[in-house]
Amino acid sequence: MKPLGPIPAGYEAIDGELAVGGQTVGALVERAGTTPLFVYSKEHLDRRVAELRQAMPPRLGINYAVKANPFGPVLEHMAGLVDGFDIASAGELALVEAAGIDPARVSFAGPGKRDSELEAAIAAGVTLNCESEGEARRALSTAERLGKAPRMAIRVNPEFELKGSGMKMGGGAKPFGLDAERVSALAREVIAAGAEFRGLHIFTGSQALSAEALIETQGNVLDLAGKLADEIGVPLPKLNMGGGFGIPYFHGDEPIEIQSIGTALAERFANLPPCLLDTQFCIELGRYLVGEAGVYLTRIVDRKESHGVTYLITDGGLHHQLAASGNFGTVVRRNYPVAIASRFTAVPDEEVNVVGCLCTPLDRLADAANLPRAEVGDLVAVFCAGAYGASASPSAFLGQGPAAEILV
Amino acid sequence: MKPLGPIPAGYEAIDGELAVGGQTVGALVERAGTTPLFVYSKEHLDRRVAELRQAMPPRLGINYAVKANPFGPVLEHMAGLVDGFDIASAGELALVEAAGIDPARVSFAGPGKRDSELEAAIAAGVTLNCESEGEARRALSTAERLGKAPRMAIRVNPEFELKGSGMKMGGGAKPFGLDAERVSALAREVIAAGAEFRGLHIFTGSQALSAEALIETQGNVLDLAGKLADEIGVPLPKLNMGGGFGIPYFHGDEPIEIQSIGTALAERFANLPPCLLDTQFCIELGRYLVGEAGVYLTRIVDRKESHGVTYLITDGGLHHQLAASGNFGTVVRRNYPVAIASRFTAVPDEEVNVVGCLCTPLDRLADAANLPRAEVGDLVAVFCAGAYGASASPSAFLGQGPAAEILV
Repeated sequence: MKPLGPIPAGYEAIDGELAVGGQTVGALVERAGTTPLFVYSKEHLDRRVAELRQAMPPRLGINYAVKANPFGPVLEHMAGLVDGFDIASAGELALVEAAGIDPARVSFAGPGKRDSELEAAIAAGVTLNCESEGEARRALSTAERLGKAPRMAIRVNPEFELKGSGMKMGGGAKPFGLDAERVSALAREVIAAGAEFRGLHIFTGSQALSAEALIETQGNVLDLAGKLADEIGVPLPKLNMGGGFGIPYFHGDEPIEIQSIGTALAERFANLPPCLLDTQFCIELGRYLVGEAGVYLTRIVDRKESHGVTYLITDGGLHHQLAASGNFGTVVRRNYPVAIASRFTAVPDEEVNVVGCLCTPLDRLADAANLPRAEVGDLVAVFCAGAYGASASPSAFLGQGPAAEILV
Repeated sequence: MKPLGPIPAGYEAIDGELAVGGQTVGALVERAGTTPLFVYSKEHLDRRVAELRQAMPPRLGINYAVKANPFGPVLEHMAGLVDGFDIASAGELALVEAAGIDPARVSFAGPGKRDSELEAAIAAGVTLNCESEGEARRALSTAERLGKAPRMAIRVNPEFELKGSGMKMGGGAKPFGLDAERVSALAREVIAAGAEFRGLHIFTGSQALSAEALIETQGNVLDLAGKLADEIGVPLPKLNMGGGFGIPYFHGDEPIEIQSIGTALAERFANLPPCLLDTQFCIELGRYLVGEAGVYLTRIVDRKESHGVTYLITDGGLHHQLAASGNFGTVVRRNYPVAIASRFTAVPDEEVNVVGCLCTPLDRLADAANLPRAEVGDLVAVFCAGAYGASASPSAFLGQGPAAEILV
């Protein structure tokens, strides 16, 4: 038996079935007309942002990293909740524009911005988080051609990392941003060239669950930003302090204790150096805002035995849930939180492997899981499916195509 | 410095540039109008099948596993080269039908076939490789409703595995097929129900490079098929012996020695038991047929230094090359064969990291590679891109979208 990850708070049952937004999974699937189906909950999104606002100093802006979940209705809903949006491509720019989001609220980071992407972003008035001298100069010449002052921030590759983070974006050689010692020279260059200087972007890592590590890193980010602003010689208009707030996926993971992060940040904000006194501060969160608000529903199409092992075979799989299957940058596969959604309150009484429909041994949703007995036709829920699910999986693999998505 | 994988045979230069099908990569990209671009070579496909036919006994059919590369023009071209097609979903059925392939040449395997997929396959006259008793019974009742005799084979989960294979599909509990001891009962059941019995499908693994292991496994498959045919009590109409033929991806990998496989198979075919005397035999290959025929071309958009390390940042990445990035079921990342395509004959003279454009440290195409000096605008080639590239990668990730594809 292998443990399942913890089901996020806020999911209830109606008549024994899992419910999201007051509707049973059966009703949701009927409404969508198909499985597999991603269901995202407005209520979860609202509550998550409200709890974060309550814990963080009022001065701290909250940005949404579109890459975590670019589904149109989610973007439209987030537009009323967060302060800014971070995008990573011209494709994401088109998505935020389609969702009616003002490009003045948007910043664009990413190490491989094409000329056409720089042009689209400058024309729209998006802030570019410049990743290199070469990119900054391409942006300046593009802006000159367009006859428009570009809004430019500089992304810094910090010397420190976010301890315990799932992905490290700082500490040593990186393809992201400029090494800190080259930042002030480029900032002065873009200011001299007539760009609207928008400050700094310092992103150190993602998916950390330790408040202590996040507090330490945010302190380091503020120290580095103060030092760089002094070197540049102008007050810093804006500082994107990065993200890094993780969510529990696996057995034993605990939610981040955000109150202590907010308290520490408030203390720092009360003692800022002169060059940061008027700075707009923000954090940039993707997974933390939307991850737990999403559930992936897939229907059991076969139940079979092989050498004494029971397999529940679903109509979903790694083509929508690459990370949950354990194949996206994972060394040791562990189970996400998974449940029999149509028998959500039933008592677990058998050990089963839940797999996807793909003809590959990579397609696993839960290994040796203790679950209530389920039959063909039952619905399986994979939780923590709101971030890096639908858009971060190979949906065309084996001719399957994308899952349906709804926001309720 | 980390070694690169071996560039497949048959790639030449014209005026110092990599060429495919007699056209330089520069000309190919101009023709396609964009990067990133997958280029597939008819000449490579033709040569690979011709070499295989020459080595294998004439009696052995060669099937193409569509999942490896479902690009329409590739399917149309393969239709003139191979004997049969193996699909894994109704989506792939639609693709082979769109390519003008006769469904009578097609068989359908996959553990999670939906009722709607069974119906589409039976209506079209596709052979179902049944994966369980439950699925077979669903197929029989669907066929009854349609008033059509279904063509049914049974997939066997063998006790043995393919040694050294990248993915094991046999040996112990598996979600694929029926354990061998239950096969004859189900075969008799489907025959009694009036289905057209099409024989057995025994798939043991994929991506093996050892001829010895493949010979041993094919011998085991023939032994098992003979034993099961005796148990069923009818001569076996057809035997799909599976695939497993790998290609070299990494430094030190050697191509399979196919001649000895063909010789061993010819000896077995000369000494068949009575129940297999009239059997149609085939192998089912995907990666081996198309993998080396494809090249992924991506343009360098930035060249930058960080802490003394040089990064070449391209407009491609893991959203088209998930396996090459080392994130698809990989434990230790190794470099695929990669070259500076626009300077294909230049002497390597620097160590660089080639990365994709995505804003994640997972997006790597070559680590610490020894390559000729390249600049913004140069084209990078990732070889072995013909199989499990475009359709097996998360193309929507970070708003990027699919790459272009051409067959030349």
